[in-house]
Amino acid sequence: MFPWPEPGQKLSEIVTPMPVIDEDRLAANIARAQAYLSAHGKAFRPHIKTHKIAAVARAQIAAGAVGLNCQKLTEAEAFADAGFGDILVTYNILGPARLARLRALNERVGRLTVIADSDTTVEGYARAFAGAAKPLAVLIECDTGAGRVGVQSPEAAVALAERIAARPGLRFDGLLTYPPVGGAEAVESFLTRTMTLLAARGIGCPVRSNGGSPDLWKAHLVPSATEHRAGTYVYNDRSMVRAGECTQADLAMHVLATVVSRPTPTRAVLDAGSKALTSDLLGFSDHGEIEELPGARVVSLSEEHAVVDLSSCTGALPGVGDVVRVIPNHTCVISNLFDRMVFHRGGVVTRVEDLAARGTVW
Amino acid sequence: MFPWPEPGQKLSEIVTPMPVIDEDRLAANIARAQAYLSAHGKAFRPHIKTHKIAAVARAQIAAGAVGLNCQKLTEAEAFADAGFGDILVTYNILGPARLARLRALNERVGRLTVIADSDTTVEGYARAFAGAAKPLAVLIECDTGAGRVGVQSPEAAVALAERIAARPGLRFDGLLTYPPVGGAEAVESFLTRTMTLLAARGIGCPVRSNGGSPDLWKAHLVPSATEHRAGTYVYNDRSMVRAGECTQADLAMHVLATVVSRPTPTRAVLDAGSKALTSDLLGFSDHGEIEELPGARVVSLSEEHAVVDLSSCTGALPGVGDVVRVIPNHTCVISNLFDRMVFHRGGVVTRVEDLAARGTVW
Repeated sequence: MFPWPEPGQKLSEIVTPMPVIDEDRLAANIARAQAYLSAHGKAFRPHIKTHKIAAVARAQIAAGAVGLNCQKLTEAEAFADAGFGDILVTYNILGPARLARLRALNERVGRLTVIADSDTTVEGYARAFAGAAKPLAVLIECDTGAGRVGVQSPEAAVALAERIAARPGLRFDGLLTYPPVGGAEAVESFLTRTMTLLAARGIGCPVRSNGGSPDLWKAHLVPSATEHRAGTYVYNDRSMVRAGECTQADLAMHVLATVVSRPTPTRAVLDAGSKALTSDLLGFSDHGEIEELPGARVVSLSEEHAVVDLSSCTGALPGVGDVVRVIPNHTCVISNLFDRMVFHRGGVVTRVEDLAARGTVW
Repeated sequence: MFPWPEPGQKLSEIVTPMPVIDEDRLAANIARAQAYLSAHGKAFRPHIKTHKIAAVARAQIAAGAVGLNCQKLTEAEAFADAGFGDILVTYNILGPARLARLRALNERVGRLTVIADSDTTVEGYARAFAGAAKPLAVLIECDTGAGRVGVQSPEAAVALAERIAARPGLRFDGLLTYPPVGGAEAVESFLTRTMTLLAARGIGCPVRSNGGSPDLWKAHLVPSATEHRAGTYVYNDRSMVRAGECTQADLAMHVLATVVSRPTPTRAVLDAGSKALTSDLLGFSDHGEIEELPGARVVSLSEEHAVVDLSSCTGALPGVGDVVRVIPNHTCVISNLFDRMVFHRGGVVTRVEDLAARGTVW
């Protein structure tokens, strides 16, 4: 029912609010990250959570990526359906229903890897893969300071590795971490200490997977990592500009929005609310920047409205009906709100891609 | 592909994270609000943004609601498709593509109403409905203190009403506002002053539409309002409990989540992140409460993880694999993340409803 844009249509004619992707910036972001990681001898494993689009993943693989990173089973299943043969799911997968799907997935994906950070997770994998012809490859997630999931010490990692190595349906493949920004030294220390302990027990550790877009360009500061994972780099966003990881000219995603009201001389209201931009702040005090309105602040979002304070805007003030380009705080969550994504070059729609594994859960 | 729950299945067996709706609480919420507004002689127009489900809207109409409130054209089109005959779209609708859809919609919905707060919006409606056999009903949105959209004074409302009344394709039907919490007095003052000015010019003002769940039970404090609009009341959420508008026993929505990691004695990690709960804070400093873990704080969300601080938890601490029920800060935005919604009674799935008009834009 909804009139999605079509190739050839001008961006100025499409219904807003709508996230749009600049083809040239997307291609440049993919190429630049791959060149950097290749130059440093790291395998690159892009996280598809940011785009959820098979065609974008194919471009990442074509550029040299070794495989994909997914965050949930539905994502992995969708990208397996699309033909990808090397998928890492960076999540503790629990419960009989999901474990049965995981075993089925392992049989049709050339190289499938999951993570574990507890005995409970490992025992679930072991039960689900008892008697499996093809073992499940497992990495141990290590908490190197981010304070999310992960074992807390190299000793705990070794104990869990021994548990995995002892189970016939499982294969211990190595270590993984998602560090905090600036965490290179802590990661290197955790990895090398764990590798030393593992080697002393005769346990190989071929994969050491590090991750994160905010420190993508510091991946070479973790020499013992064999691969790096990153998602946001493909589109970039306001948080990546703030982190110094890209410039405004590298932002591949904008959210087109229409000025629907100008209630006062200093207030504009856009049709992009939290159901288009999400309410992710990522440490900002406002909800994005607007290319056409420098100095304007997106001070609040309701579900279908953004309230913009124009009192410090240094550009020409907008009128009702004007279309502007919002630089979102965080791109990854915006992909999750739309069934399709619009791509363009020079203001003309090039393609409209379906998004996989959104609107579902796990 | 995703294995959605089926009627008869136990909630304890379904894949998480998953929002679920308690049938009895839902029915009680619908009945209670309708009884209150009927007792005070107000028409009730529920906002479907909270649920986006035709069956829930039918229950609201069956209870006595006069019609529906939608926030965008895709919602109105979906509920027109589902057979609803009285729809109010509380939005400035702009641009030739949307206006053409609006005219088509007006021809198939018995009573369709939109709002305007500027000359530009009114001129767009007038151009689109020039020569229309059935005029478009327009309310003027008034800013009574919320600081979002709306004309800023009764005088401005009157000037715009005259403009609407002068255009042959349009019909001025009255006034609308979405006030801030505690705004009853300001709303009553704005409405009565405007009605007096309109009456002096011989302009009728049959509809005076007030709105908001946070002040639903104070709707009677605005005597001149003829109708009230509310969305969140149907499910309720943590923000409604804080506002004193409902109790914990009136919460119809929980988000089921699995404990996927217990990295430290005081930390649990759930599989419900910002892609399941959204990052809406609504003034809270954390991301929901957990029924089973009193005192626990959901301190941060990443896309697929919630980090829970258990250090002040007064209940039994959870283990990996345990399923808990999260009380979300804000229900309306959660409906927007899922393709379907699961309903239950006594822990058993009763039905799984499709959601309309999500994953699309405007």
